[in-house]
Amino acid sequence: MPDLPLLPTPNDPRLTRRISGTDQTGTATEISVVEERPLTIYLNRQEIVTAMTIGDYPEYLALGFLRNQGMLHPDDVVTAVDYDDEIETVVVRTERETSYEEKVQKKTRTSGCAVGTVFGDMMEGLDGLVLPRTEVRTSWLYALAKEINTTPSLYLEAGAIHGTVLCQEDRPLVFMEDVGRHNAVDKISGYMFRHGIPAEDKILYTTGRLTSEMVIKTALMGIPVLASRSGFTAWGVEIARQVGLTLIGRMRGQRFVCLSGEDRLVRDADPASVPEEDRKSRRKSADVS
Amino acid sequence: MPDLPLLPTPNDPRLTRRISGTDQTGTATEISVVEERPLTIYLNRQEIVTAMTIGDYPEYLALGFLRNQGMLHPDDVVTAVDYDDEIETVVVRTERETSYEEKVQKKTRTSGCAVGTVFGDMMEGLDGLVLPRTEVRTSWLYALAKEINTTPSLYLEAGAIHGTVLCQEDRPLVFMEDVGRHNAVDKISGYMFRHGIPAEDKILYTTGRLTSEMVIKTALMGIPVLASRSGFTAWGVEIARQVGLTLIGRMRGQRFVCLSGEDRLVRDADPASVPEEDRKSRRKSADVS
Repeated sequence: MPDLPLLPTPNDPRLTRRISGTDQTGTATEISVVEERPLTIYLNRQEIVTAMTIGDYPEYLALGFLRNQGMLHPDDVVTAVDYDDEIETVVVRTERETSYEEKVQKKTRTSGCAVGTVFGDMMEGLDGLVLPRTEVRTSWLYALAKEINTTPSLYLEAGAIHGTVLCQEDRPLVFMEDVGRHNAVDKISGYMFRHGIPAEDKILYTTGRLTSEMVIKTALMGIPVLASRSGFTAWGVEIARQVGLTLIGRMRGQRFVCLSGEDRLVRDADPASVPEEDRKSRRKSADVS
Repeated sequence: MPDLPLLPTPNDPRLTRRISGTDQTGTATEISVVEERPLTIYLNRQEIVTAMTIGDYPEYLALGFLRNQGMLHPDDVVTAVDYDDEIETVVVRTERETSYEEKVQKKTRTSGCAVGTVFGDMMEGLDGLVLPRTEVRTSWLYALAKEINTTPSLYLEAGAIHGTVLCQEDRPLVFMEDVGRHNAVDKISGYMFRHGIPAEDKILYTTGRLTSEMVIKTALMGIPVLASRSGFTAWGVEIARQVGLTLIGRMRGQRFVCLSGEDRLVRDADPASVPEEDRKSRRKSADVS
């Protein structure tokens, strides 16, 4: 297991590029821009999907994607994860053929694309799911938001990227970023699967919106608390209430809204003592749209 | 053709819902939240994809999705677009079987999901594509940004939603919003296809990031100018330069960066005369992440 916390590496030269342009006055300018490259994920002999990603942690992305789509089960034994950066593919190999491969073969005879199917499978996975009633303190949430927003990141370096952080109490453990909102979550899921990290005492913090898919993924990962600086959709809230996920949105400075799990929220911090975000942090989220 | 401009309808009761929660002080609060629902798109007898959408304009979304994926060609004759809101499906029917259906049937025998394939097809569509050398005035861009940011919208009502606007000179023509960044663009593409709107004199403005897929879609739609208040990825810039798309990013108040097409940009406005965005507009984009 890598040393924790696992933080962004904004100075990694493979992740950003200097690009020249002109500003509003016509002056030549050079800016840091995040990379974006295709990664094709295979499960054994089956090609599954091509994701657009920043390209760090391809192995975690592949494992997490397959886990979150229900294509890999908790008891599947992964025998190898082979990444080939030249042909931009990653192959996840399992001890037994997974039941998913059979399912894909069967379903795609009648259905053009597995995506619809897979979404249905994700919803099915929620049936009967009830998350542990883990308490979360508002003092942790405020501490996490502040630390995450000021940690050096690709976002602060180049913008146009999403961040998702696996946390325990007031400590960020694994901070992933990606051009795709879902990739960042999938990389965390892959990390947890690979290293057998328990979920029931964790908090997931994201810069992105709390849409249905984000809520479903968090719930299927078994994480009982999801917090975001952004907004949410009606269906996202509905699913969170159904599975007992504590859902916190619009976290900015001292403000937040709790949409689900009020009875599991321990209000131990005085919001008035939390400073408003400075202008830099406000701009921060503005670029991630 | 509907009367133009076609603007958002934030008061449409099908698009938002009041949801109760508690704020940081523990006070009960009620907020407007956007809806999100699945829509399954069929091309004739072939199921293609299930998209998560806010649910307005399902017919335009279906047509535009199929057009942007290269599954419908400009000369395909659409005989019907049947939307069934009870089972949340839309079926696009064409005079002849499209070549795409055959392709899906063939490819999915070896490939689990058409998404990778389709992305490859989109890239192929760029081969040899050169957009018209349409000029764009900075005075239009400033006027558009101001008007779009202050037009009543679901964004201003409920947040957590993306907007994309088809414009001509300094006039917004079709303003679409959706929980999915790509859905908003697809709805515009569907509108243009359905009503035979020429592309070569248009500007596409979006609140979202200029990723490769967004740039590819705009180019395939034949629109020569793409502007955004958000950032961009390196590959997005590369593709824009390759096809001659004028690319403007990070438009906020008087600021912007031109990444591609400087020689087609007519700098007829004095940036110093453009007011900085007020606090409300700054927050605006912060919620769309």
